[in-house]
Amino acid sequence: MKKKLKEWFNNKKAAVLLVIATGLLIAMASPLSAFAADPSGAQTLADNASAPVDYVWVLICGFLVFFMQAGFAMVEAGFCRAKNATNLMAKNTIDFAMASLVFMAVGFALMMGNDYGGLIGTTGWFLHGDSYDVGTYLMFFWQLVFAGTAATIVSGAVAERIKFKAYFLYSLAVIAVIYPIYGHWVWGGGWLSKLPFGAGHIDFAGSGVVHTIGGFVGLAGALVLGPRFGKFGKDGKPKAIPGHSITLAALGTFILWFGWFGFNPGSTFSAHQLRIAVVAVNTNLAAAAGAAVAILLVFMKTKKWDVGMMLNGCLAGLVAITAPCAWVEAWAAVVIGAIAGALVVIGVYFWERMGIDDPVGAVSVHGINGVWGLLSIGLFADGTYGLYTTDAPLIKGLFYGGGYGQLIAQAIGAAVCVAWAFGLGFIVFKVLDKYFGIRVSPEEELKGLDIPEHGTPAYPNFYTTNQG
Amino acid sequence: MKKKLKEWFNNKKAAVLLVIATGLLIAMASPLSAFAADPSGAQTLADNASAPVDYVWVLICGFLVFFMQAGFAMVEAGFCRAKNATNLMAKNTIDFAMASLVFMAVGFALMMGNDYGGLIGTTGWFLHGDSYDVGTYLMFFWQLVFAGTAATIVSGAVAERIKFKAYFLYSLAVIAVIYPIYGHWVWGGGWLSKLPFGAGHIDFAGSGVVHTIGGFVGLAGALVLGPRFGKFGKDGKPKAIPGHSITLAALGTFILWFGWFGFNPGSTFSAHQLRIAVVAVNTNLAAAAGAAVAILLVFMKTKKWDVGMMLNGCLAGLVAITAPCAWVEAWAAVVIGAIAGALVVIGVYFWERMGIDDPVGAVSVHGINGVWGLLSIGLFADGTYGLYTTDAPLIKGLFYGGGYGQLIAQAIGAAVCVAWAFGLGFIVFKVLDKYFGIRVSPEEELKGLDIPEHGTPAYPNFYTTNQG
Amino acid sequence: MKKKLKEWFNNKKAAVLLVIATGLLIAMASPLSAFAADPSGAQTLADNASAPVDYVWVLICGFLVFFMQAGFAMVEAGFCRAKNATNLMAKNTIDFAMASLVFMAVGFALMMGNDYGGLIGTTGWFLHGDSYDVGTYLMFFWQLVFAGTAATIVSGAVAERIKFKAYFLYSLAVIAVIYPIYGHWVWGGGWLSKLPFGAGHIDFAGSGVVHTIGGFVGLAGALVLGPRFGKFGKDGKPKAIPGHSITLAALGTFILWFGWFGFNPGSTFSAHQLRIAVVAVNTNLAAAAGAAVAILLVFMKTKKWDVGMMLNGCLAGLVAITAPCAWVEAWAAVVIGAIAGALVVIGVYFWERMGIDDPVGAVSVHGINGVWGLLSIGLFADGTYGLYTTDAPLIKGLFYGGGYGQLIAQAIGAAVCVAWAFGLGFIVFKVLDKYFGIRVSPEEELKGLDIPEHGTPAYPNFYTTNQG
Repeated sequence: MKKKLKEWFNNKKAAVLLVIATGLLIAMASPLSAFAADPSGAQTLADNASAPVDYVWVLICGFLVFFMQAGFAMVEAGFCRAKNATNLMAKNTIDFAMASLVFMAVGFALMMGNDYGGLIGTTGWFLHGDSYDVGTYLMFFWQLVFAGTAATIVSGAVAERIKFKAYFLYSLAVIAVIYPIYGHWVWGGGWLSKLPFGAGHIDFAGSGVVHTIGGFVGLAGALVLGPRFGKFGKDGKPKAIPGHSITLAALGTFILWFGWFGFNPGSTFSAHQLRIAVVAVNTNLAAAAGAAVAILLVFMKTKKWDVGMMLNGCLAGLVAITAPCAWVEAWAAVVIGAIAGALVVIGVYFWERMGIDDPVGAVSVHGINGVWGLLSIGLFADGTYGLYTTDAPLIKGLFYGGGYGQLIAQAIGAAVCVAWAFGLGFIVFKVLDKYFGIRVSPEEELKGLDIPEHGTPAYPNFYTTNQG
Repeated sequence: MKKKLKEWFNNKKAAVLLVIATGLLIAMASPLSAFAADPSGAQTLADNASAPVDYVWVLICGFLVFFMQAGFAMVEAGFCRAKNATNLMAKNTIDFAMASLVFMAVGFALMMGNDYGGLIGTTGWFLHGDSYDVGTYLMFFWQLVFAGTAATIVSGAVAERIKFKAYFLYSLAVIAVIYPIYGHWVWGGGWLSKLPFGAGHIDFAGSGVVHTIGGFVGLAGALVLGPRFGKFGKDGKPKAIPGHSITLAALGTFILWFGWFGFNPGSTFSAHQLRIAVVAVNTNLAAAAGAAVAILLVFMKTKKWDVGMMLNGCLAGLVAITAPCAWVEAWAAVVIGAIAGALVVIGVYFWERMGIDDPVGAVSVHGINGVWGLLSIGLFADGTYGLYTTDAPLIKGLFYGGGYGQLIAQAIGAAVCVAWAFGLGFIVFKVLDKYFGIRVSPEEELKGLDIPEHGTPAYPNFYTTNQG
Repeated sequence: MKKKLKEWFNNKKAAVLLVIATGLLIAMASPLSAFAADPSGAQTLADNASAPVDYVWVLICGFLVFFMQAGFAMVEAGFCRAKNATNLMAKNTIDFAMASLVFMAVGFALMMGNDYGGLIGTTGWFLHGDSYDVGTYLMFFWQLVFAGTAATIVSGAVAERIKFKAYFLYSLAVIAVIYPIYGHWVWGGGWLSKLPFGAGHIDFAGSGVVHTIGGFVGLAGALVLGPRFGKFGKDGKPKAIPGHSITLAALGTFILWFGWFGFNPGSTFSAHQLRIAVVAVNTNLAAAAGAAVAILLVFMKTKKWDVGMMLNGCLAGLVAITAPCAWVEAWAAVVIGAIAGALVVIGVYFWERMGIDDPVGAVSVHGINGVWGLLSIGLFADGTYGLYTTDAPLIKGLFYGGGYGQLIAQAIGAAVCVAWAFGLGFIVFKVLDKYFGIRVSPEEELKGLDIPEHGTPAYPNFYTTNQG
């Protein structure tokens, strides 16, 4: 069976092609008349003359979120070795390409379609039929760039040792199943959003939906793959494997910081929520505090100003503020970001001690700080803003007299998120490993993945050192 | 005569300076009173209270299109060798600088000025007089960033062997003549837009006007220059000359993808066209499909996951969807992009077999897929959207019962575009070659252009290999 | 005393932490009720239904200005050596992080708070109390990204020899004192804005407030630090120290150019000023003219197409047009940019001859051209636009019959700006030098700052040459 499946895959080349082809066949099989809902936008505009500014806001913020793909690619490249750089670029590009196609085919429907039992969405497959509508396409675009972010986060945790084909397939699983179903529970009207505590489980821009999911699927991947050669000595002590370009890592961090200004403020999904100004300020302050605290903490210990940790501290602050950004004041954003900066430092040392090899710190940055972001709502939400609107119910946390309700809702959601992401992620990687093998051969890993997998070194004009 | 011209150029240093100086003299010679039309915007706002959101939309999308210059620079750098990287940066910066100045002086007037006989525009020189108006400046900005894109596309096809001075001068010709005149025929009210088939020749965001023009001028340049040393063996067989940084190439591709979200959706030139949501989704899906198909096709042949081809497949999808993006549904965007991904693979092999050396694949990406994009309107336009508006006439292609009319209009426009770009491009490069010589000496080419042309290597702190 | 302070600092580790902690304590000590002004935005929207498009415009332009941080980082990295690249990334990230925290704590209040005697602002500390308001947060975000730009400009002038700790502390001084107080004088209703000449001293987007300040603080830093080893021969003749990546420098320049489209047009602080279209066009033309003139001038002298100078010429044009961009016509923008391109070439040679070592040319690009930009208003302002509004008083310079009034106001402001920035900058660097020492040891400088200061080389996978 295993062999047959493998043969089939190798012979037929790419199940992926099949998925695409099937989808297109279904879509094209429907009668070629595309008149449904409001594809031109004329009716939508007639109904709401102030829609254009909302469309402009959501689209441009969505473009910024898309651009985070470049940021993730550069951070991952910078923190990994030159001998795998071609492979990293391949992964970071193909995962968004696959995300686009698969989310259009099934993910979007599962996540944002009409709710079935609080569990999944059930309409909007292939954006066809009634989904051919400017409002639906706008929502699709927005949700897609978030789905793509969740998928690409995993890449860093499994870097420098995963087979490209395995990564390709895993991407399908995350985008088609893991991400959209959990997303439905929180953003699609599913059961978590209706928890009988506080205002239900809430997550403004996705500390949980995007980052915790990505981070803990990544943890599953890192666990199933095992550490890279040379990461742990014979005594089990971790060794640093420095990345090949601090400049690219810094550039990537700036791009992510920039893109986050789309990610968080754009999540109002409306420019008529002037609260976007508060969201932007909070986003920035948390990033700043995270960076400052992380570099200072490491300096206290090592007397070196650790740039990698500062960049991760910055990202940790951004991840943490993603859930609470619309519900807290500036000083709280600083505190949330500062704690995130400390958590990422602790996290990186913790996972290393646990024998987990996460080359870019993705689990600590996205996984742990995603959870912290979710919880922080239950503490710091100050009761000045409601659920994506200025109307009641206003969100209030423990420190503002809101009691424990919201905190409980946040804790439940966070626990479910971690369990779902890690659990399904583990199953997916295990299954892929069993049937195809997900790790490259030791020879390939030592040599670097670029030549055996892609036939092209990333930097053929430069002399490179032995990279372990 | 030839010698004299050459001397004059060398002695007087820069004809370019003269052009600028003359222009400024003319402009400054006009009386120094700048009151014309609506330079402050007060009247425009009074006439149309909802203008601000359109200005915001067009400007920000225009900024994104500008940013594509960085993308082109990084892709070209990444796909070429380290020894020419300084030269590539010089070309990619100066061409947009020249485009800005020359398009302001003459290009914009030729393209968008009052129509004369369906052939050229005739008003708006130097943005002076009545052109000092917020609406005209807005239009100028938009058209300029597109003109700059067309110019910079050529750069990749002539890379690693063209003299900087020749590139400088050729840029003038494209921006002052080749691009704006063809642009006038399609977007300035010229004869192609009035063809008596379908709705006339149409091109939403410039698969033809920008990309086919750029690609086929590039083909002319590559042909006149001849291939780089070492590209073809003594037996005529092509050899791969790998680029020096896959990370920069990938970064550039992400920047281009990002910028394309300005390029296509912004081409409504109005945020009141809510169809922008559909345009954004289609743009993204075509890119994704192009990337996926290109990498899979090459994998089937070589068993390697070819990152360069994936990146070009992505760009090919973007080029192809540029013309039809506003008139098709999501699934059609996937099909158009997928075909583009196949075409670029075929194209790259085809031109190599023809003995043409196009270092970055610009002719296949932009030239061929520009044509495919134009034609695809005639097939897939689904009759839900009109000519930059929700009003009739709605655009309908063959597959939606629109008959052959639109397809014929598209084919005529595409043929004219290829002939014009290749024809004039060939003449320009031949003339420049005759009078100044456009190719660097063999010694300079082997050594790399950076030192002889610019005096500065791009990476003086690194040991580089012999780069052929 | 000196020793004690030093000990205190070294023992207590980071005064910075103290500043943050104190601030947070104060903020948290205030009663935990955050209801003040309009934190949700509901009232603001009710009062002004067209506010959303202004918020969208200001925020997105602000995001672009933020992204300039990436541009500065890449330009500085590109123009400096590989052995210091980690350090450069550290500086360029931490300065924006510190700027965010310190500007939130004190800078914003000093600059934009209620005016006291024309000298300083006095309200809005920690964005707390009444400042918890969507409009105030919007203004804070906008002013912050500008403050961050001023701070990071200095980085280039002091590169490759300053201690990280010193840079950290200097950042505090610029953001807490030097920048906001001068900023108050011009933009916060202070005395310079009320000079009895022309319309008072004006500076549309900050040629003076941001760039001259940054440039001349940088000059002070470069002077106090002294030149890098090897910059001047025993005979005092300057030697070129080439940067390690022209591609990163070019990328950075494109990012800055892109970000400047937020910087200048966004400074209307309102999308209802349709003049934004004129501002965008002028910004671009000045950049283009600066790049073209700088490369041509150097070519005339050296027969080499100098890419570094072209990039600096581009930035010089952008700096110069920043003050006048809203008050001049397109041709004037070309002239202003062209002169800037010449000034930067002259400036770079001038400072070298003066024995000042400014590794990236920051003083010439930002300092000198900031002054030129301020003055150019007094010459070219054409009387078509008022003070951030279409209403009177319209700004008119010498060439348009406005007499000498505006020119005098500009000259006074420029002189004050230079004296303030250089004077206080000098004091700050001298004091820091006296108490802590601001320059790394000769051994560290020769080896590069990356290992001794940060423990991590930027490019451990590549063989690097002896970098002087």
